[in-house]
Amino acid sequence: MKLSEVGEFGLIDRLGDLLGEAPEGETWIGDDAAVLRAPGGTILFTADLLVEGVHFDLAWTPPADLGYKAIAVNCSDVAAMGGTPRRALVSLGVRPGIEVDFLEALYAGMRECSDAFGMAVVGGDVSRCDQLVVSVALLGNPAGRRVIERRGARPGDVICVTGSLGAAAAGLRLMKAGQPVPSLLRAALLRPVPRVREVEVLRRFLPNAMIDVSDGLAADLGHLCDASRVGATVDAARLPLIDTAGLPAGLDALELALGGGEDYELCFTIVAERAARAAAEVEAATGTRVHLIGEVTEEAGGRVLVVDGTAQPLAASGWDHLRP
Amino acid sequence: MKLSEVGEFGLIDRLGDLLGEAPEGETWIGDDAAVLRAPGGTILFTADLLVEGVHFDLAWTPPADLGYKAIAVNCSDVAAMGGTPRRALVSLGVRPGIEVDFLEALYAGMRECSDAFGMAVVGGDVSRCDQLVVSVALLGNPAGRRVIERRGARPGDVICVTGSLGAAAAGLRLMKAGQPVPSLLRAALLRPVPRVREVEVLRRFLPNAMIDVSDGLAADLGHLCDASRVGATVDAARLPLIDTAGLPAGLDALELALGGGEDYELCFTIVAERAARAAAEVEAATGTRVHLIGEVTEEAGGRVLVVDGTAQPLAASGWDHLRP
Repeated sequence: MKLSEVGEFGLIDRLGDLLGEAPEGETWIGDDAAVLRAPGGTILFTADLLVEGVHFDLAWTPPADLGYKAIAVNCSDVAAMGGTPRRALVSLGVRPGIEVDFLEALYAGMRECSDAFGMAVVGGDVSRCDQLVVSVALLGNPAGRRVIERRGARPGDVICVTGSLGAAAAGLRLMKAGQPVPSLLRAALLRPVPRVREVEVLRRFLPNAMIDVSDGLAADLGHLCDASRVGATVDAARLPLIDTAGLPAGLDALELALGGGEDYELCFTIVAERAARAAAEVEAATGTRVHLIGEVTEEAGGRVLVVDGTAQPLAASGWDHLRP
Repeated sequence: MKLSEVGEFGLIDRLGDLLGEAPEGETWIGDDAAVLRAPGGTILFTADLLVEGVHFDLAWTPPADLGYKAIAVNCSDVAAMGGTPRRALVSLGVRPGIEVDFLEALYAGMRECSDAFGMAVVGGDVSRCDQLVVSVALLGNPAGRRVIERRGARPGDVICVTGSLGAAAAGLRLMKAGQPVPSLLRAALLRPVPRVREVEVLRRFLPNAMIDVSDGLAADLGHLCDASRVGATVDAARLPLIDTAGLPAGLDALELALGGGEDYELCFTIVAERAARAAAEVEAATGTRVHLIGEVTEEAGGRVLVVDGTAQPLAASGWDHLRP
């Protein structure tokens, strides 16, 4: 059977079935990071493979930014479980034409992100490869034994999102079109800020469920709802969209937020009574705004976007890089 | 600067300098696995990147064997630190032409090895890539807090090695030459047995230093000696070489053992009084022979092979896949 027939998520489901059953207290596939029980406590464990031409293009990605981002996106996965990133291994596939200076800049970028978030790259592996490949595996600590999984959302919870949505996708579209890229959009694309500090504050308010927004809000909120067997109503007017004034026509801020991807913001649900207080304390401690964008509903699969008072389906247009 | 000018180990040194300093109690680069301190105890953390055309050729590597081996070689790294492998993440780069059945067989092989050694693959990532890439990151537990590092060898220690040396390299040469491959050599190449059970017995005898033999005994014993700042004298007559009777001429068993690679046997040093007893108990418990092949000496860099009573340099001809 061809991969294009099953797609990325179909493949992951099939391979997941071959892994076996997680023991009590562990979560394997199906969240931002695996949750493991070690003799002395809980561990968060996550991995991402970044491939040249698929996840990044060196024509517009300086090596230090690539290194920074490779660490940042894994930190984001640990943060999305309520944890703190600690240690990473980085395996590099190096193609002909890559030079030592390039790799040193790549590592300097990894170091910069690591230092900024209290973690460290402690080693890895290196091999020849036809494409540049950056494979990161990262360990984190949850706070105590408590992790925040995707599957805990409850009807009546308020849905919140940190920062803003759509900037990285806007930056990527401008880069690809060869157009000037405003520095805010460039930074969002090349130096996403994993919400590690925000989570340190937020977890005291006990969110019920959390995910990081890497494939666009519609897809990722969809994953959270599916895992929790609930629905969601999102108010388009409350989404933290980018300001498209001054940008080329054709950039639709709402579409970028819902389907654009690579935001690495946190989307979480929390009981209504604590939502405003949690948002205020995160902003006071970190400067990052938290927006209350909607509500968790009973109906599993019922995902609704309200635009100008009219309800429409909140459709996930997510990106599947195994399909043509 | 070009990679070919610095080579694999030169590159690793340069990149290692960029990682920063490991805190007290941790070991980052420079051993088979990183040693990390988590709130509840010590963790072993290792990663290997396997690339099609560099580490394996699908013309003679069935997918189930590739999966088995990808897990086995990482288990070997944890065993070589005196630890027990526990959990792995596997990131796959999948090229066009690879089908779902192939990946399911790959995962079935990973599962087979995992089940055999009490560990589990708990997730990972998947991406398009021009070459098939299998990137494994594996966590293990040491026994208590004690790890067996490369750097603990002391003059007077006996040097020991498990199993036999050179079979995988002999199998690879025959495969590449299109010649028939005896099943023992094929198994050594495609299904190496990580010495996890042997280590469970061995660590009770407190070896001073250990490494797994992946690049040939000369290179790996050399790494152990360099890390320990000692020398070594190895008696060629006591090496567990393969029997070349019936194999094509040109396969030199001594050369394959010293420079061939991919044995995934353990090479360790232990105080002389405990060596024979340790060897006997490992064999009694696991059926795996342990050979006492030489002695650790004072002189750092002094590595000697004794052949028929004549001392010659024990030269490492190790493989550097970043050099032409």
